[in-house]
Amino acid sequence: MTRVNSFALLTDFGTHDGYVGAVKAVIASLVPDAHFIDLCHEVAAQDVVHGAQLLQDLSPYLPRACVVLAVVDPGVGTARRGIAVEWVGHQRWLVGPDNGLLWPSIAGKEVRIHSLENSEYRLPQVASTFHARDVFAPAAAHLALGIPVERFGAEVTDPRVLELPQPVVSTRQIAGEILRADHYGNLISSIPETLLPGDVPREQLRVQLGDVEIAGVVASYGHRPVNNLLATVGGFGRIELAVHGGSAAQRLGYRPDASYSLLVRW
Amino acid sequence: MTRVNSFALLTDFGTHDGYVGAVKAVIASLVPDAHFIDLCHEVAAQDVVHGAQLLQDLSPYLPRACVVLAVVDPGVGTARRGIAVEWVGHQRWLVGPDNGLLWPSIAGKEVRIHSLENSEYRLPQVASTFHARDVFAPAAAHLALGIPVERFGAEVTDPRVLELPQPVVSTRQIAGEILRADHYGNLISSIPETLLPGDVPREQLRVQLGDVEIAGVVASYGHRPVNNLLATVGGFGRIELAVHGGSAAQRLGYRPDASYSLLVRW
Amino acid sequence: MTRVNSFALLTDFGTHDGYVGAVKAVIASLVPDAHFIDLCHEVAAQDVVHGAQLLQDLSPYLPRACVVLAVVDPGVGTARRGIAVEWVGHQRWLVGPDNGLLWPSIAGKEVRIHSLENSEYRLPQVASTFHARDVFAPAAAHLALGIPVERFGAEVTDPRVLELPQPVVSTRQIAGEILRADHYGNLISSIPETLLPGDVPREQLRVQLGDVEIAGVVASYGHRPVNNLLATVGGFGRIELAVHGGSAAQRLGYRPDASYSLLVRW
Repeated sequence: MTRVNSFALLTDFGTHDGYVGAVKAVIASLVPDAHFIDLCHEVAAQDVVHGAQLLQDLSPYLPRACVVLAVVDPGVGTARRGIAVEWVGHQRWLVGPDNGLLWPSIAGKEVRIHSLENSEYRLPQVASTFHARDVFAPAAAHLALGIPVERFGAEVTDPRVLELPQPVVSTRQIAGEILRADHYGNLISSIPETLLPGDVPREQLRVQLGDVEIAGVVASYGHRPVNNLLATVGGFGRIELAVHGGSAAQRLGYRPDASYSLLVRW
Repeated sequence: MTRVNSFALLTDFGTHDGYVGAVKAVIASLVPDAHFIDLCHEVAAQDVVHGAQLLQDLSPYLPRACVVLAVVDPGVGTARRGIAVEWVGHQRWLVGPDNGLLWPSIAGKEVRIHSLENSEYRLPQVASTFHARDVFAPAAAHLALGIPVERFGAEVTDPRVLELPQPVVSTRQIAGEILRADHYGNLISSIPETLLPGDVPREQLRVQLGDVEIAGVVASYGHRPVNNLLATVGGFGRIELAVHGGSAAQRLGYRPDASYSLLVRW
Repeated sequence: MTRVNSFALLTDFGTHDGYVGAVKAVIASLVPDAHFIDLCHEVAAQDVVHGAQLLQDLSPYLPRACVVLAVVDPGVGTARRGIAVEWVGHQRWLVGPDNGLLWPSIAGKEVRIHSLENSEYRLPQVASTFHARDVFAPAAAHLALGIPVERFGAEVTDPRVLELPQPVVSTRQIAGEILRADHYGNLISSIPETLLPGDVPREQLRVQLGDVEIAGVVASYGHRPVNNLLATVGGFGRIELAVHGGSAAQRLGYRPDASYSLLVRW
C-alpha cells in the first residue's frame, strides 16, 4: 500500500545528462503515481555543504507527507554508507549518502537512521558510479510503499555530522562570508537575519564587502533606486547584496572561485 | 474540496537556487496531489515584457482547468499589489504581481481581479523578497482549493496595463525587432505571421536585418539547404531567422544586449 | 478511458523558451492527470545521435506503463514522417519523428509502427516548425487515452534506421571515442564495459587519450586520491575519464567541437 507519493528531489546532477531522468524513471516504475517536487538539481557540483544548506533552507516548506531524496555524493561507490532516515512521528523520510548532506535537516529532530544494505530494495544491477539510480531511488520508492526503515539495514548511530559555516558575532559586528551569487547576481551571505541586533534600526546598519560599504539593510530590492547597490534580507533569511534592476555580482566583479568576507557593523 | 490540481508555473527564477522548489513545496503542502506544468523558469531576469509575451503565447495551450502562477517581479516587497484573477465562466485562475505580467493573457477576457491582502491565505511569515513562496504560491493553492477570488482582498479595477511591442505596418513593409535568440540560436522577431500580406506569395517576401537580406519566408528550417540562413515562422507564430542545422545568432554575431530592427518588405 | 498517464519526455528544446511548457500544456489538456518524467531536455541541439543514445540508455529504467515522447527533429516541417510506435505485449508507446531517434530503443523488439497522419489527433492548427506541440504531444496523449496506433495513419514498414557509434575491437585493444563531457566534466566514451576482456584484471587495463595514459579502470571516483585523473565505468555502463573532486574536461582541455579517440589496451 502506497502511503506517500510525493518525492522531493535535490541533487547536483544538472539537467544535461539524463541522470535526474533516470532517478525519476526508477521511482515512477515502483510508485506509478509518484509526484515529483524538484527542489534543485543545480547544487554546485560535489559541494555537500551547499546541498546541505539548501536542503535545510527548503525543509520547512515541504509537504507534511513526503520522501526526500538528496544526492550530492562525491564518494559514490566507496565505503561511505547510504542511509534511510525516518522522522519519528511525522510522515517524512529522507534518503541519501551518509556524508553530512542530510545532517542539518535532521539535527535536533527525533529520527531513526538505517543503512541501505538490503539488496531487495536495490535495482538488480548496481553501478558503482550511480547509486542515486540504483540504490537511493529504489530506497525512496520502497519507503513510500511502506517498507519501514529498519528493513533496509543496520541502525546507524553515528551519522556523519556536518556543520554549516557560522558567522562570528562580536561587539557591534557580525563577520560572515559570501556563499554564492544567485540567478539574479544577488550575493548571498552566511549571515542570517536572526543575528541582527534587535535594538538597532536597520537603516543604521553598515554592510561591508572589501572596500565597498553599504548604508542600511532595506526591506527589498525596490527600496533603493534602480541601479543602486543595496543590502537586504534574501528569501531564505540571509543578508544579501543586490543591485535594483541589475546584478551585484557583475557590479562588484564577483568571482565564484574567490572568497569574500562580509561584515555587518553598527 | 479541491476543484483544480493543475498548476502552470512561469517565472524568471532560473533553476540554480531552489526558488522554484520552494514554490512547488508550498503548493504541494496545501494541495498534495498538485500537478505542475513548468511553462518556463528562464524568463530573462526581471524582464516583465518577456514574461508577459511568453505567458500570452502559452495561454491558448493550457488545460481548461488550471491555476497559472506567474512571477517576474522586480518590485517584490514594494507597494505593487499581488493579484488573483478569475477568468469568469472558465476554470482558470491566475496569480502574480500586478505589474503587467498577466495583462496580455487576460486583456479582452471577462475577468474578476482581487488584491492579495488576506493574511489567512499567506504563509505565517512573509519575506519581503520572496512573495512567490509566501504570498503567491499559497494564493494559487487556495484558489485551487476552492477559495473564491473575492476572499483574497479588495477588487482591483485598475490593473497595471502592459502593451507588448507592436510592429509598424506601412506600405509594402512591416518594421519590427528581434526579441531574442532561442535555444537553437533562432532569432525571434516581434512580427507575427498574421501581419504578412495575404496576397503576396511567401517566396516573394524579403526579410532584412541590417545589411543582410533573405529572400522568401519558408515553411520550416529544412526547406533550405543545410547551413543556409533562412526566414521562417516560429512555433509561436512570429517571423524568425534561422540557419538550417546551425545557429543564426552565431552566424550573424547576435548580441543579447544590442537592438536589432527587422524589416519584411514586398 | 485513460489507460496510461505517465509521459516520459526527451527533447533538445532546452528550458529557456517555453517549448517544453507548451508540450506539457497540450498533453495535460488532453490527459488532466498526466504525470511527467522529464528524462532530458538538454540533448545537444539537433543531435539525433545523442538523443537516440540517451533514450536507449534510459529505456530500461522506464515505468512499465508509459508513453515516451522524444523529439530531436532538425527536419521538422519537411517530408520526414512522424511515428507512433507500440511495443507489442507491453504498455509502452513511443512518439517522435521518424529520423532514427527512436530506433535504438525499439530495435529487436516486436513493435507496430504507424505514421502520424490523422488530423483528428493533431491540434486544429499545425505550425510547420513545432510538430512537438501540434502533432507529437496530441498523439502521445491520444495513445494514453487508448487510441490504437493503427488509427493514426498508414503502417510504417521501413522506419529510419540509426546505428550508434560502435567501438572497434581488435587484439588486446578497443578503440572508441569521447562522446561528450557531462555536467561534472567527466568525459564519457563510446566504449561499453561489456566489451572489456573478462580475463584481464581491471587494474591491468591501460586507457589512452592522445598522449595521456591512465593505468587501471577503477570502480568509482573515490578509488583514486582527490585531484587524480582516473578511468572508471559511468552510470550508463561506458568507460569514462574523471578527476576525483574535479573536472576531467578542464584538466585535459576538452573542447566539445573537437574529436577525441580513446583506446583501452591490455
